[in-house]
Amino acid sequence: MARVAILGATGYTALELLKILARHPQAEVVAATTRQDSRLHISSIHPSLTGLFNLRCENLSPEQAGKMCDIAFCCLPHTASMEAVPQLLDAGCRVVDLSADYRLKDPGVYETWYEHVHTDPTRLSTTVYGLPEIYADKIPAAELVANPGCYTSTSILALAPLLAAKVIEPTGIIIDAKSGISGAGRTPKLSNLFSECNESVTAYSIGKHRHTPEIEQVLGDVGGSEVQVAFNPHLMPMDRGIFCSIYPRLIGQHTQAELLSIFRSFYAGQPFIRVVDHIPTTKDVSYTNFCDITVRFNRDQLVIFAAIDNLIKGASGVAVQNMNLMLGLDQRMGMLSC
Amino acid sequence: MARVAILGATGYTALELLKILARHPQAEVVAATTRQDSRLHISSIHPSLTGLFNLRCENLSPEQAGKMCDIAFCCLPHTASMEAVPQLLDAGCRVVDLSADYRLKDPGVYETWYEHVHTDPTRLSTTVYGLPEIYADKIPAAELVANPGCYTSTSILALAPLLAAKVIEPTGIIIDAKSGISGAGRTPKLSNLFSECNESVTAYSIGKHRHTPEIEQVLGDVGGSEVQVAFNPHLMPMDRGIFCSIYPRLIGQHTQAELLSIFRSFYAGQPFIRVVDHIPTTKDVSYTNFCDITVRFNRDQLVIFAAIDNLIKGASGVAVQNMNLMLGLDQRMGMLSC
Amino acid sequence: MARVAILGATGYTALELLKILARHPQAEVVAATTRQDSRLHISSIHPSLTGLFNLRCENLSPEQAGKMCDIAFCCLPHTASMEAVPQLLDAGCRVVDLSADYRLKDPGVYETWYEHVHTDPTRLSTTVYGLPEIYADKIPAAELVANPGCYTSTSILALAPLLAAKVIEPTGIIIDAKSGISGAGRTPKLSNLFSECNESVTAYSIGKHRHTPEIEQVLGDVGGSEVQVAFNPHLMPMDRGIFCSIYPRLIGQHTQAELLSIFRSFYAGQPFIRVVDHIPTTKDVSYTNFCDITVRFNRDQLVIFAAIDNLIKGASGVAVQNMNLMLGLDQRMGMLSC
Amino acid sequence: MARVAILGATGYTALELLKILARHPQAEVVAATTRQDSRLHISSIHPSLTGLFNLRCENLSPEQAGKMCDIAFCCLPHTASMEAVPQLLDAGCRVVDLSADYRLKDPGVYETWYEHVHTDPTRLSTTVYGLPEIYADKIPAAELVANPGCYTSTSILALAPLLAAKVIEPTGIIIDAKSGISGAGRTPKLSNLFSECNESVTAYSIGKHRHTPEIEQVLGDVGGSEVQVAFNPHLMPMDRGIFCSIYPRLIGQHTQAELLSIFRSFYAGQPFIRVVDHIPTTKDVSYTNFCDITVRFNRDQLVIFAAIDNLIKGASGVAVQNMNLMLGLDQRMGMLSC
Repeated sequence: MARVAILGATGYTALELLKILARHPQAEVVAATTRQDSRLHISSIHPSLTGLFNLRCENLSPEQAGKMCDIAFCCLPHTASMEAVPQLLDAGCRVVDLSADYRLKDPGVYETWYEHVHTDPTRLSTTVYGLPEIYADKIPAAELVANPGCYTSTSILALAPLLAAKVIEPTGIIIDAKSGISGAGRTPKLSNLFSECNESVTAYSIGKHRHTPEIEQVLGDVGGSEVQVAFNPHLMPMDRGIFCSIYPRLIGQHTQAELLSIFRSFYAGQPFIRVVDHIPTTKDVSYTNFCDITVRFNRDQLVIFAAIDNLIKGASGVAVQNMNLMLGLDQRMGMLSC
Repeated sequence: MARVAILGATGYTALELLKILARHPQAEVVAATTRQDSRLHISSIHPSLTGLFNLRCENLSPEQAGKMCDIAFCCLPHTASMEAVPQLLDAGCRVVDLSADYRLKDPGVYETWYEHVHTDPTRLSTTVYGLPEIYADKIPAAELVANPGCYTSTSILALAPLLAAKVIEPTGIIIDAKSGISGAGRTPKLSNLFSECNESVTAYSIGKHRHTPEIEQVLGDVGGSEVQVAFNPHLMPMDRGIFCSIYPRLIGQHTQAELLSIFRSFYAGQPFIRVVDHIPTTKDVSYTNFCDITVRFNRDQLVIFAAIDNLIKGASGVAVQNMNLMLGLDQRMGMLSC
Repeated sequence: MARVAILGATGYTALELLKILARHPQAEVVAATTRQDSRLHISSIHPSLTGLFNLRCENLSPEQAGKMCDIAFCCLPHTASMEAVPQLLDAGCRVVDLSADYRLKDPGVYETWYEHVHTDPTRLSTTVYGLPEIYADKIPAAELVANPGCYTSTSILALAPLLAAKVIEPTGIIIDAKSGISGAGRTPKLSNLFSECNESVTAYSIGKHRHTPEIEQVLGDVGGSEVQVAFNPHLMPMDRGIFCSIYPRLIGQHTQAELLSIFRSFYAGQPFIRVVDHIPTTKDVSYTNFCDITVRFNRDQLVIFAAIDNLIKGASGVAVQNMNLMLGLDQRMGMLSC
Repeated sequence: MARVAILGATGYTALELLKILARHPQAEVVAATTRQDSRLHISSIHPSLTGLFNLRCENLSPEQAGKMCDIAFCCLPHTASMEAVPQLLDAGCRVVDLSADYRLKDPGVYETWYEHVHTDPTRLSTTVYGLPEIYADKIPAAELVANPGCYTSTSILALAPLLAAKVIEPTGIIIDAKSGISGAGRTPKLSNLFSECNESVTAYSIGKHRHTPEIEQVLGDVGGSEVQVAFNPHLMPMDRGIFCSIYPRLIGQHTQAELLSIFRSFYAGQPFIRVVDHIPTTKDVSYTNFCDITVRFNRDQLVIFAAIDNLIKGASGVAVQNMNLMLGLDQRMGMLSC
């Protein structure tokens, strides 16, 4: 039974982690931290957890939390995470970091996109990127896993097989990504109020969204050459779900069946990737760790569609999948299996 | 052409006021105030108003705004309003106050429910309560009209005819009220985030909601004896709309047809009240100044249903209706007529 | 490992059953029936089930299905169910019937409310009503369990402890119930179109809703005297969730704490009932088998609030809970435990 | 005062037409037709119209309706419209046809995309396409105006200025279009049920959507050379609104400011087109006849964003705009002006 700590337990990713861990047969949550001094019971912060945990949120230092657990999930915001992670590792636990702080290999790229100096730059090159369908060989032994962004996972999973097979151009890829509002987090802002978001669709952060370099880094690694994407995020009036419509340029002639076959070979044996013939919906994957993918041709324009639940496969589900791999467990544990 | 000022122009009620006034043939918006010093164009604050107004939001004092206009709509929060209204009146304009500050006649009741000392108590007894279907005789000459609350209007309109006809008991009335989220305003709070409200229904402020004494005051005035209601507000995952299900105790035997007939007589000639045979939906009245009402029997329990758009008939629509009456115009102007 | 068949596999309750059973360690789905001859794979009907089952929907007779399984879940509409259930039982399996056909003890009451003659009336008196928190002693040995209605469960769970304790009057109980749209089923009708339901709240079937006699029958059984409720259902613009606001008449003086204590004693040891201090939201129980309950006073009017997920605790979750009890398993299996 | 008839009055476009016409000072609705024999009052079909019209829906032939009116709005489905329109014109009225039957110039193209033989092919070449911002010179004298599709208007308005200015390539244009559910109409189908659409995003009709040839025809006319688009429609969980994200290939170097300037020149004096600096939302234009447009660069990929209300600027609003032009009235009448 692995002892688990959650740092930054008040947000939505922590909530979803706790819901999954409540049913996980090999993990026990021993600590949940917050920077408030309230010592509130976890069910006061997340009423949906009532009865599931006997646990108080405490203002523990990363060192304190790290000493109590085997694995820490770090759900702190970026910049806060890079302060906590070294302390957690020093305290002897292993870490799945759900922030963006350890996802990029190059501290210069981090500083360009996040407009902060990275205070733990030397660790970036050795951190394992926690997308199990791509880096399953490295995750089991990792001390620190950088859990991917939600848009990032969807985009990478939808493009990696075709880039690896070199049937699409690595540049000029247009990603039109649509996300539910929970991706904006639980901190009150005008832009995530119900009355602003409901019955409304819009785009944001065009050319500036921080998931862009992360997508390009991993896909470049997969495809073996520099990748360049135009990533265009949009907000949809729903809680959960990401739907990516991706427009790459095809190299040569390939049928829909051939391309689906490339996907199916690439993801053979992967329990959470479903390459489907129909166009998926976000509802098909809602509250699951699945990523559903298909392709279509619109005349001669290839379109890839991929759907996930942004809080599960885009955050907390994949975090548990990473933990399972780090602990030598079946990666499905707590989600598809018991 | 009446010159109009709007104090507190950044919220949803101001936005809806401006949308109505943009089509009003006898009103010109000459000022919109905010307590920020930004001098932002009104369409920077409310992009939906782009092209409709050549107007900047300015940090004007109530005195300054009051001197520029014939009628001021005060969209400030309670306690701020009772500071501004005396200055507006002193500056010579007439006022429709959309806050709660002047709705209650008794400063003691105000202080009990709002937990603030009223700083302008002597004006309360002379302020006209701006529910045109009840106080149409007093509104035309009023200097200051207190615009009703959204739950309040719905509840009063649904109960007044039967209380006036003395066919229901004035006490023990249960109001189960359901509101869209826009009623919670435009200030970011955890409780009005999309991801908290969407796909969720709950109740709040049971026994403590401040519209309670307002409902009882006006209905007591209408019915001639003390009224006591158990008002139970609920939040629904939608932008706009209030739906009240009201459970009074009937006095004597009355058929559904007789009760509808009492409603139809009471509201004869009222352009915005629709006494209907079917059960209304909030969508039927969405984006309109209508209040739709019907009654049903559930075995021997009478149920009254009433629906409005909380931002129109519950706030900005009735405010324009009040302005029309104060200016001697057709009360439908800008809404049903041109 | 119990062999399970699902009759009527195309609707929402069957879908939720299948999602729960996919994770159930002691149940294997061996058949899913439909009245179409298509032999479609279950994931063609419910794409969200892709990869979870190797199962085709077949046009099996109840007799055929009954012979293949140990337990059959009957998800057919009412009147169809009373034809299938006798055949299932004759074939030797046990049955959880999710329709309304076996919920009422008195065939005359059935015929009054459902406007159909009951073709299997003699079985009604011996059928066990499948609300485990009330009838846990009878469910384990039952051959046929009538799974409760969604509104019904919520209302009964919210009222039973206070009726059993005789602290509320058994008559004159007002139930204001609010449901998400999935309760209306998966058959296309104007009234369950997105564009009709979204951004809209209304009431329906006032005085005529068929869950009324079911509530009264079970609560009468619990309280020992005839119960009479005014049940008023409303539709909310959301997928899932029922929220009941219940207004009973109190007998004598009782504090909120005393009433909560009655609830906590009544439900001691029940894993799926959470008596809470805060007012619950439907989101707190969404995608779970929990029922969250609390009470409030609005001046001297008692209000009981209860929330469930209508498809889980209101249908498929309680169906699995019943199956677990019938099989001698932990009733939490497949939901809270593994 | 123009006499107006509406053929096919039961759907959402007819409802929105009636709402606009209720406030139109120069139009009087004299007939509303349906193919049912019920003679239902219009407010029985559309309860939101209660009190606005004294009008029954009647099973009138196109000839009968055409003789009663000066202008007929034909809201029939495609193929039904091509039967009615000739009869309407023969009866002496002018027609705004909201179906797709008269939008395409080439009957062969119609037959390819709609899979029906066109029974009135000779009229196609003379029908005026009713997009006032493009064909304002032809609409005033037209006997028959083909009202554009909702996706079509948005796409054309977003692309026409740049194609006319020859700063983008006419081929290889990717349109990622997002629509609310009301665009799917009021006929019950599984795919437009609330419980299917809510909390879900997906794509559909990739490569097969019938608005494709309409977009290409009009843009080819505007740009002077053949246009080819990859049009990709998506469904969003909301009532109303279309948001198009369009990815064209730029010819030469142009700044965002230069491109916005091209848009502003092209639409100078157009009351319903708002070229804005911010990224619009569908909510900004909801319940209005506005189309909001802006451009962004994502690195070197140009993105055009455009938003409309699909039922107003995408259907019934532009239909009234067309009627106004046909009658020699201010095109804003009934919408922005009185």
